[in-house]
Amino acid sequence: MRRVAIIGAGMTPFGEHWEHGFRDLAVQAGLKAVEDSGIVGEKIDAGYVGTMASGRLIGQEHIGGLLADYMGLNPIPVTRVEGACASGSLALRQGFMAVASGMHDIVVVGGIEKMTDLGVNTVSDILGGAGDQEWELFLGATFPAIYALMARRHMEEYGTTEEMMASVAVKNHKHGSKNKYAQFQNEITIETVMKSKVVADPLKVFDCSPITDGAAAVILAPMDMAPSFKKKPIEIIASAQASDAIALHSRASLSSLRATQVAAKKAYEMAKLTPKDMDFAELHDCFTIAEIMGIEDLGFFKKGDGGRATMEGRTGLSGEIPINTSGGLKACGHPVGATGVKQAVEAVWQLRGEAEGRQVKDAHIGLTHNVGGSGATAVVHIYRNQ
Amino acid sequence: MRRVAIIGAGMTPFGEHWEHGFRDLAVQAGLKAVEDSGIVGEKIDAGYVGTMASGRLIGQEHIGGLLADYMGLNPIPVTRVEGACASGSLALRQGFMAVASGMHDIVVVGGIEKMTDLGVNTVSDILGGAGDQEWELFLGATFPAIYALMARRHMEEYGTTEEMMASVAVKNHKHGSKNKYAQFQNEITIETVMKSKVVADPLKVFDCSPITDGAAAVILAPMDMAPSFKKKPIEIIASAQASDAIALHSRASLSSLRATQVAAKKAYEMAKLTPKDMDFAELHDCFTIAEIMGIEDLGFFKKGDGGRATMEGRTGLSGEIPINTSGGLKACGHPVGATGVKQAVEAVWQLRGEAEGRQVKDAHIGLTHNVGGSGATAVVHIYRNQ
Repeated sequence: MRRVAIIGAGMTPFGEHWEHGFRDLAVQAGLKAVEDSGIVGEKIDAGYVGTMASGRLIGQEHIGGLLADYMGLNPIPVTRVEGACASGSLALRQGFMAVASGMHDIVVVGGIEKMTDLGVNTVSDILGGAGDQEWELFLGATFPAIYALMARRHMEEYGTTEEMMASVAVKNHKHGSKNKYAQFQNEITIETVMKSKVVADPLKVFDCSPITDGAAAVILAPMDMAPSFKKKPIEIIASAQASDAIALHSRASLSSLRATQVAAKKAYEMAKLTPKDMDFAELHDCFTIAEIMGIEDLGFFKKGDGGRATMEGRTGLSGEIPINTSGGLKACGHPVGATGVKQAVEAVWQLRGEAEGRQVKDAHIGLTHNVGGSGATAVVHIYRNQ
Repeated sequence: MRRVAIIGAGMTPFGEHWEHGFRDLAVQAGLKAVEDSGIVGEKIDAGYVGTMASGRLIGQEHIGGLLADYMGLNPIPVTRVEGACASGSLALRQGFMAVASGMHDIVVVGGIEKMTDLGVNTVSDILGGAGDQEWELFLGATFPAIYALMARRHMEEYGTTEEMMASVAVKNHKHGSKNKYAQFQNEITIETVMKSKVVADPLKVFDCSPITDGAAAVILAPMDMAPSFKKKPIEIIASAQASDAIALHSRASLSSLRATQVAAKKAYEMAKLTPKDMDFAELHDCFTIAEIMGIEDLGFFKKGDGGRATMEGRTGLSGEIPINTSGGLKACGHPVGATGVKQAVEAVWQLRGEAEGRQVKDAHIGLTHNVGGSGATAVVHIYRNQ
């Protein structure tokens, strides 16, 4: 396999884009990534785009063809990849393989979702398609309900408290306040979370990531071509993906995600590194409990210690492993198909030293972790600056 | 890049499967391919699945995670790829790259769609998502209408007649009558087509492919491992994809598909072959005019001669280039996400000499051609037996 680097990165602000459609957002993010890389568009050989539910959200499938057209990329191949909320990372992984295989040299990878044009109940129903539609959503189990079950189990097994979960949201809002692309740039307190409306007990509104519009993009190139471009190349040194039962009732555990554990193990092996070598991580905090499980399943903390570690500030900007410097899904926002690519964009900015007020000191190696549904898919990438 | 071969192939019958759900059909096809290859399931490293519109058709996204689960493949990575009616070929292409890159060795590729559980108008609306939803479907242009415009233009430019188009359907029904997996196994006449109900003038019901349920699967392996398996390996010697404007009004021509021409050129270059070297082809006859344009755009006949050539029997089983021996989309059926993989299955059967009553004599090299929407995506694969 050829070594692969990211040579350009860009994203739209995440939030409610009532003035921009799906196509506009995708083009904006793509152009920013192209401009950042300094290449001319004609050099691009192929594209991948992650989108979860454009069929139901905007009535449009064939997103690869659509964006090849609107990005002015015809006649190069552009392909849509879908893995629920992990769609963006799956697109990155396909782009990685396309370059690694030698099939293509310069590949643009985008992630996008336009979610705020429909009512919240409709969107919630559509997002239910990320889980087991027949055995979960159909019977009333929306995503907050599914993650509430996991939270309850984690509390039962490890003594995790609602305040510990709240501390995830507080930290991520703090990081989001330093990120001009974040949907929420306001700080909150434990009390804000604890007093917010219950969605699915024990999860409250501030334990949940929001509904968001947005797009993000990166440009990939073979490592041996990468230094000839404008910016310092960021190498993707591992790309791993794993799966698990789609419905919660078929899982071995409710308090950890096996797919995350398997993908992380493979990624560390591929990079020949351990969790201790990571300088920061962007991970999948669709609900606060998801971040707690994530930092355990990725090996940053012992199983069961995630809540306490967060409460103690060990995952903050100046902690031992800064988690979700972008603000995460909670504060930066969660346009589902875009999230995985946004995580890569944040990793690139951190590893180039371009993360402004939220810059992690001496960042050389970073990890991103993206989950589809309630854990039927997990994707882990590891990045290194040169 | 490593060389890649197909070592197993299987499919469900195509048709109206009221007694089987999406999950059942996918598993049935997957198991047939595994059984055909003689491998044990544990050897599979990764999966790709092509599905166009599961979100709207069955309320379910995250098809990779779902099928990893129902196929018993956890925790290996399984990824859904979408490119409208070309979804299956795009899945094959991603599987090809995953093996070619060295990322994975044994990869299962599936294609599936479950379409007959909704009313025909709803399905027609959903399929409209394969074109430009904002500028075509929203204004009333369904797929038959879009292809009718192309047919009209082809008639105007080249003197193609309705009878010539009808002869495509007659041939494909004849081939379908020899395929036990085909949705329609009855022969028809030019008169059957000409007297059938008009859908979008000049296209009649018998000019259109049907709405279908079905699934197909193949197993890929690196060429250097391939001979150790049960069946004669069929090498994929070219995989090419191209794109064009998603809406008809932005195209340079209405009587040919630029994406097909570009993908074909790349595929022939990759295989170091010419159209004359092909012993047969499965191509995308979503409407009869599409096959006529396809055999021209792929270089089998001069532009404008496709209708006449078909009428003269030159694309029949004993013609110079047998087209759609499976019955094509017209007679074998068109479960949109499955079609591209079914084409590969038919190519494998032809190249192994397993195509029974529709076997092409001395078949050594075959081509498949799959189109997304009205031509915003086209994918061409070339296969060779060893």
